[in-house]
Amino acid sequence: MTVATWGAVLQADDDRGGPPPVRPMPPADDEATLDPADWEAVRALGHRMVDDMLGYLRDVRRRPAWRPVPASAKAALDRPLPNDAADAADVYADFVEHVLPYPTGNVHPRFWGWVMGSGSPTGMLSLLLEGAMNANAFAGDQSPVYVEQQVIAWIAEMLGLPNDTSGVLVTGGSVANLVGLTAARRARAGIDFDGLGLAAIEGAPVLYCSTETHNSVDKAAATLGLGRAAVRKIPVRADYTIDVDALEAAIIDDRVLGRRPFCVVANAGTVNTGATDDLARVADVAERHGLWLHVDGAFGAVAALSPALRDRLAGLDRADSVALDLHKWLHMPYDVGCALVRDRATHRASYAQPASYLARQTRGLAAETTTFSDLGPQLSRGFRALRVWMELRTHGVARYGQLAEQNVAQARHLASLVEASPNFALAAPVPLNVVCFRAAPPGLDAAACDALTRELLAQVQERGVAVPSHTMLDGRFALRVAITNHRSRQSDFDLLMQVLEEIVAEQLVTRDSS
Amino acid sequence: MTVATWGAVLQADDDRGGPPPVRPMPPADDEATLDPADWEAVRALGHRMVDDMLGYLRDVRRRPAWRPVPASAKAALDRPLPNDAADAADVYADFVEHVLPYPTGNVHPRFWGWVMGSGSPTGMLSLLLEGAMNANAFAGDQSPVYVEQQVIAWIAEMLGLPNDTSGVLVTGGSVANLVGLTAARRARAGIDFDGLGLAAIEGAPVLYCSTETHNSVDKAAATLGLGRAAVRKIPVRADYTIDVDALEAAIIDDRVLGRRPFCVVANAGTVNTGATDDLARVADVAERHGLWLHVDGAFGAVAALSPALRDRLAGLDRADSVALDLHKWLHMPYDVGCALVRDRATHRASYAQPASYLARQTRGLAAETTTFSDLGPQLSRGFRALRVWMELRTHGVARYGQLAEQNVAQARHLASLVEASPNFALAAPVPLNVVCFRAAPPGLDAAACDALTRELLAQVQERGVAVPSHTMLDGRFALRVAITNHRSRQSDFDLLMQVLEEIVAEQLVTRDSS
Repeated sequence: MTVATWGAVLQADDDRGGPPPVRPMPPADDEATLDPADWEAVRALGHRMVDDMLGYLRDVRRRPAWRPVPASAKAALDRPLPNDAADAADVYADFVEHVLPYPTGNVHPRFWGWVMGSGSPTGMLSLLLEGAMNANAFAGDQSPVYVEQQVIAWIAEMLGLPNDTSGVLVTGGSVANLVGLTAARRARAGIDFDGLGLAAIEGAPVLYCSTETHNSVDKAAATLGLGRAAVRKIPVRADYTIDVDALEAAIIDDRVLGRRPFCVVANAGTVNTGATDDLARVADVAERHGLWLHVDGAFGAVAALSPALRDRLAGLDRADSVALDLHKWLHMPYDVGCALVRDRATHRASYAQPASYLARQTRGLAAETTTFSDLGPQLSRGFRALRVWMELRTHGVARYGQLAEQNVAQARHLASLVEASPNFALAAPVPLNVVCFRAAPPGLDAAACDALTRELLAQVQERGVAVPSHTMLDGRFALRVAITNHRSRQSDFDLLMQVLEEIVAEQLVTRDSS
Repeated sequence: MTVATWGAVLQADDDRGGPPPVRPMPPADDEATLDPADWEAVRALGHRMVDDMLGYLRDVRRRPAWRPVPASAKAALDRPLPNDAADAADVYADFVEHVLPYPTGNVHPRFWGWVMGSGSPTGMLSLLLEGAMNANAFAGDQSPVYVEQQVIAWIAEMLGLPNDTSGVLVTGGSVANLVGLTAARRARAGIDFDGLGLAAIEGAPVLYCSTETHNSVDKAAATLGLGRAAVRKIPVRADYTIDVDALEAAIIDDRVLGRRPFCVVANAGTVNTGATDDLARVADVAERHGLWLHVDGAFGAVAALSPALRDRLAGLDRADSVALDLHKWLHMPYDVGCALVRDRATHRASYAQPASYLARQTRGLAAETTTFSDLGPQLSRGFRALRVWMELRTHGVARYGQLAEQNVAQARHLASLVEASPNFALAAPVPLNVVCFRAAPPGLDAAACDALTRELLAQVQERGVAVPSHTMLDGRFALRVAITNHRSRQSDFDLLMQVLEEIVAEQLVTRDSS
């Protein structure tokens, strides 16, 4: 590996003759700074951190998938406000003792709870670089803006959207959904929301989505002043995809009643079961009725990167807006997601607010470029584009597609183990990477099966074996194994089922003997 | 410096007897991962990055404060979507050549544009740790939740708010203002916004703030469906603070007209001039009329950490909600801010949305703790609390207060240089850390002064000397030097004025000879 050092680049820059160097001035004795007096000590600490953190990730398989936060750590994290400075190494030692051992756990190969990505060693290092530049990617003639333009174009291409699609990096799918629905409200609700707001209202705007839609859509509707009442939940079919006929019927009914249908949210990968709505048919309905089509593809849109999985996303390219998480199935460090909006003018108008202190200039740092702060809720914005740029370049798109296929194959493998067991039953179809199942030993009624399933969830975590999460399907409790994990191996699912079978056996013995 | 190594902690954990180790399983030959085949190469790259990035920060004073992004870098950041993997070291080399040299510039000692913090070497290292744990601080029994509880309590105490104040870390002041106003809308607008939304409207809700208020308040009002029309801008006095009598008169008028006054936004440090409203008097008015008091203290609330500056914030402790940036005057790495809401139940109700897959359990990772995802727009949330915890502990609150005082003294020093110069004039009072001024050589009319001031802004950046920004005050263009920079020395302001005087002299010669 050969790397251009920063010193060499600086030197080259001097040789090229940049701006003249400015005169260095020593600090007055009493001038304070957060920079260290001893840079060498910080360097040594940084090296130790790199070694420790890479060891932490390399050896993650040795550790339990979860363990409770002990009283000692809780006590160490409930201290008086520190007035005085401390040695950075001592603070780091406290971190190592009280914080590091009790993570969420999503870096672990057997963490399959909710939908979380695993991160990566190179992604971790990219955060160090973000921290060094400490950029504010709001706008202007600076590299972070060009990097973000680049990754937005890449993400649009990854999802098969036009290469002039507008986009912005945000903290994740929830805010990406908010951005998409803010644009939808502006473009299609028929009201000057930004100017007049509520005062302009005549006829309630209605937004459609399936009953399986993520709760961030409800949250966005509440935030936007539409209210949860504006969110019409359409029933799903047996495969947990939206009933498109029921959708169209609801739109027609609402129009007749004087309401204002303005938006459909379709799912590419529901959180409960990984179902993907029939995007092409939903797009037809949206088009027929003049509604905005927003696709929540938080994790499921990543299937677009796999030639084997891509077909199920047919119609995604007709979306007016798309939400995608980058910290989930693309494993970039938390938190980062992307909102894409087809119509650039609508996107910008949804958030731009003029201010004299933000006026663009023709020269200098404030020169006109993409004003990313006009495309989402943040004005000051971290340089999260860097982790995306470095990770996409380092691993390449093909690798992410391959990992998605691997997780889908693992889900099928786990489903087959569940189906082969007399003690377990699938709770839903497994169309993608999510496996919902429950304990169902012969002779136990539904309530007893639910109780046993809850016990399994707790014990498999408490034993440190694995972290599934849970959900309710058809009114019954289910274990939920959502496989967005590049560290999982097929043998990890064998282990999960083996341990679950052991616990079931123990529980049934306890039950029989009591 | 002695540091407990991670290996030692793991060993100690094994000795204590934690959960039994689970059987390691080798990967099948065809199993893919984002982990490196060669950990040692990544370790070497990590060390090089630490060395380079610390050098980058240590030597920042050698470099120009800004330089344009050259065509070569723009071309390198406009490449086809990478399908294949690349060597991480090669990607890093491209970063070093094309990205690193063209930052926003806020790490530089003479960057005083907009309001941006400088970051710090230890803050940078804390991002590495965040990247290793890659936590999702949404809720549950995991250390990131306890760390965030700790820093929220610390921040409330720093600002003199009750220690049971509810709070959440967000991306910055814009979202913190959105959170505060969402809570205000819920509590005081007299409408079931979350449930019925617009359908419930009778009488337009009105929010009050001064004409100097940050545009994120307009943005929040638009997002919330209130519309910019709901934002009543109250005039300021000569010191750019809100005219409290005019505020009260407007509230009374609006009530008479059937509108619904529900919230006052007061400023602790305006973006244009650093003015702080008379918070105690505004609090009196809010209390008298039953309005929610939100304080935008994005940077100005940091004055609370200085015994010498604290007095001007009298009344802050009566706020119903407060927005504070941590990446500005507290120099934590971008992006991180905090929303505090006095009433816990209102705060939670503003964002909580039930979902079966998020239901808390009594045992395991999903056990009940603070559900931070119920307190703001994000469900998945990065572990930005770590940088706050480490930085507050490492530097101590007293140091931040001292640095704020230093910046305020530097602003006074610069103001005195401006006042002493025949060629410059202050454009506004300098109550805190923001100095607005313009060129005003004898004999030039207002238009010529504005044009000259614009030229100064461009040239001082193009020469790499310093990055001020700009604003309009009383309809005229002004240079704006906002000093939230722990690397600035008093001599840096001497240099700024010296160079500005040189440019003015050159421009006047050019002018006279043309």
